[in-house]
Amino acid sequence: MAQTQTRLDGLFSSAAKRVAPGAPGGRGLSPDRVNFAGGAPDPKSMPTKAMGAAAVRAMEKNGQWALQYGAAAGYDGLVEQLLIKLKRDNGVDVRPENVLITAGASQAIDLVCDALVDPGDTIISEEPAFLGALRLFNAHQAKIVGIPMDDRGMKMDVLAQTLADCKARGVQPKFIYTIPTFQNPTGVTTTLDRRLRILELAKEYNVAVLEDDAYFDLRFSGERLPMLITLDDAGLVIYTGTFSKIIGAGLRLGWVIGPVPLIHKVSKLKPDGGTSPFASHIVAEYAPSQLEEHVKELVNVYRNRRDAMLGALKAEMPEEITWTEPEGGFFVWLTLPEGMDSVAIQPEAAAHGVDFMPGTVFYPNQEGRRNIRLAYSFTDEETIRRGVKILAGILREYLPAT
Amino acid sequence: MAQTQTRLDGLFSSAAKRVAPGAPGGRGLSPDRVNFAGGAPDPKSMPTKAMGAAAVRAMEKNGQWALQYGAAAGYDGLVEQLLIKLKRDNGVDVRPENVLITAGASQAIDLVCDALVDPGDTIISEEPAFLGALRLFNAHQAKIVGIPMDDRGMKMDVLAQTLADCKARGVQPKFIYTIPTFQNPTGVTTTLDRRLRILELAKEYNVAVLEDDAYFDLRFSGERLPMLITLDDAGLVIYTGTFSKIIGAGLRLGWVIGPVPLIHKVSKLKPDGGTSPFASHIVAEYAPSQLEEHVKELVNVYRNRRDAMLGALKAEMPEEITWTEPEGGFFVWLTLPEGMDSVAIQPEAAAHGVDFMPGTVFYPNQEGRRNIRLAYSFTDEETIRRGVKILAGILREYLPAT
Repeated sequence: MAQTQTRLDGLFSSAAKRVAPGAPGGRGLSPDRVNFAGGAPDPKSMPTKAMGAAAVRAMEKNGQWALQYGAAAGYDGLVEQLLIKLKRDNGVDVRPENVLITAGASQAIDLVCDALVDPGDTIISEEPAFLGALRLFNAHQAKIVGIPMDDRGMKMDVLAQTLADCKARGVQPKFIYTIPTFQNPTGVTTTLDRRLRILELAKEYNVAVLEDDAYFDLRFSGERLPMLITLDDAGLVIYTGTFSKIIGAGLRLGWVIGPVPLIHKVSKLKPDGGTSPFASHIVAEYAPSQLEEHVKELVNVYRNRRDAMLGALKAEMPEEITWTEPEGGFFVWLTLPEGMDSVAIQPEAAAHGVDFMPGTVFYPNQEGRRNIRLAYSFTDEETIRRGVKILAGILREYLPAT
Repeated sequence: MAQTQTRLDGLFSSAAKRVAPGAPGGRGLSPDRVNFAGGAPDPKSMPTKAMGAAAVRAMEKNGQWALQYGAAAGYDGLVEQLLIKLKRDNGVDVRPENVLITAGASQAIDLVCDALVDPGDTIISEEPAFLGALRLFNAHQAKIVGIPMDDRGMKMDVLAQTLADCKARGVQPKFIYTIPTFQNPTGVTTTLDRRLRILELAKEYNVAVLEDDAYFDLRFSGERLPMLITLDDAGLVIYTGTFSKIIGAGLRLGWVIGPVPLIHKVSKLKPDGGTSPFASHIVAEYAPSQLEEHVKELVNVYRNRRDAMLGALKAEMPEEITWTEPEGGFFVWLTLPEGMDSVAIQPEAAAHGVDFMPGTVFYPNQEGRRNIRLAYSFTDEETIRRGVKILAGILREYLPAT
């Protein structure tokens, strides 16, 4: 039975009908290419040995529960370890009932949408924004209103005006989506005064804030800024995070933190009978003795890569091209001069073995043709330098005549 | 920051507003009670040691990819092992592109709904039906039309009449939902002639069939019957299964198998960046040398428990009460005489330390008051006998006067 012929075609839902044809989704991560495209963590830094040992300990101690169905909110032993980490490193002090463990930050964002968004509802998002979040907002048939960013975060005058406009039109936006620290795709960190202003506006217009914080721990330089959720006094901030960048994305373990009524809703809307108790027990075994140290190692790994990336850009790129200088995270955001088109350049770069994401995929409306996201997380310094050199040569060819 | 106060209340989606108040979802599995309630596997049979060892091997061999983002369709090494198992044990012969790995069978059902069901669409379901499926159908705002069952499966005359009625009213049902083998909650296995009839009707009315097959491997007696997907020649059957009952529910690993166009749709609708590569790599390491043998052990464990349950029912229950005699799976379904109400009896049984599910939770419309589901999967034989004795005593008190 080949199961390629089907009579299902007339039965698809409207969401399924909107799915574009083409290859199934997935991230092809070839180690042979210069991969600046995905936001994938460094494979060589994965704590494989320690996780194997943690698995043995978890199976010995508590294996029959690690292999059993779990509570909808997640394994309480993992929640406990997460709260210790968040208090120690992030300044977030919440209670277990404020936490729900999810299959990565993606499911966290998906569940927040389930809880807050009906088709046609408005979401305000920084622009450019995390591709995965935009995809989920679209899947919920939300209307996405973008707020442009500069190198200090969203432009506050535009955010204020947008909220005022919504109110004037009788539209209640459901939440403001932001990655305030080492943003994906730009690498920009929102300044403290803008963080405070976002919260002020959220309170004024009674809009939730979805703070997506996948990169917080990976700061290479500069001072830590308080997370929005630690500044919030109105219970309007919902915070999502993930173990993807600090232990391993393959665990699919993330979290959503928010007011108890929200956590209650998402625990009931979650379809899957508890996020992997198996992986959760193993991480809860790994974290107490090893997570803090491992994050320090990762900060060094990624700092070296950022430095290699910024150094190579400075050495190789034509002066017409500018870029952000992230203090942490995985990404640098290039801006090309007027008249250049990253979408057109991408295939040629790929033909020369260098993969990147054109800016357009981070915009709801195909803007961003003059931008390129470069991830320095996946490749080593030598490859970064080689890749930037190749890319610079290609971009140079496309420079508009002056 | 307590995060119990919130101003989010006005922002919830219509789905979130429908969430009932009360404690967060989850399965409290206390080993101190006689637990006939959940369909949880036997904790003592979990292959904890072997899974710990498999984790070490998986981390050594391929840890940097087990901890990395994975393809949306799932880890291909696990798909390969699954196809070997399905061909060997289930008579299912499909190709990798017919498979998508999910976070348990629950996510598989959820994704099939995403791909086929718009709000207001009709799903035809056997009745009583798996609680988790009904919950997901409701979450998709489907109209559920129930088909009553007898001890050979759904009543075919009612199914045929229902499909004809839908057609007459211009309603296109999206799929027929069934657990044909060791059904949850009744333990009933659909006969071969009814399996063929379901497919005949599906073709006649061009309706998909969702075959949920969580218990196939756990047959204690009788002959294996062909799965619907192996009898289907129209590409209308979608098959979901899970490692929950044969390795461990805590892995949250299941699958959906179907025609390529459907798998393409669900891979694009899946929000979570690849189902746990970590757990997938470990299971792919465990399965080749140990799964087949482990399933044989489980069949013995659960056969003994079924025998203990049926023996105790026969010894203890008043003659007015009847029950199904499952050839496999986890469940026995009791029918009480007219005038008795399992919902009213449940709290008293719980007060005496015996937990069960009243029939009502398996019906879309609160029918099933004269039914009780007893799961014999979680407790040992001694406890089963003790629990049935207690329960029989309580039921006897509630018998209507004759």
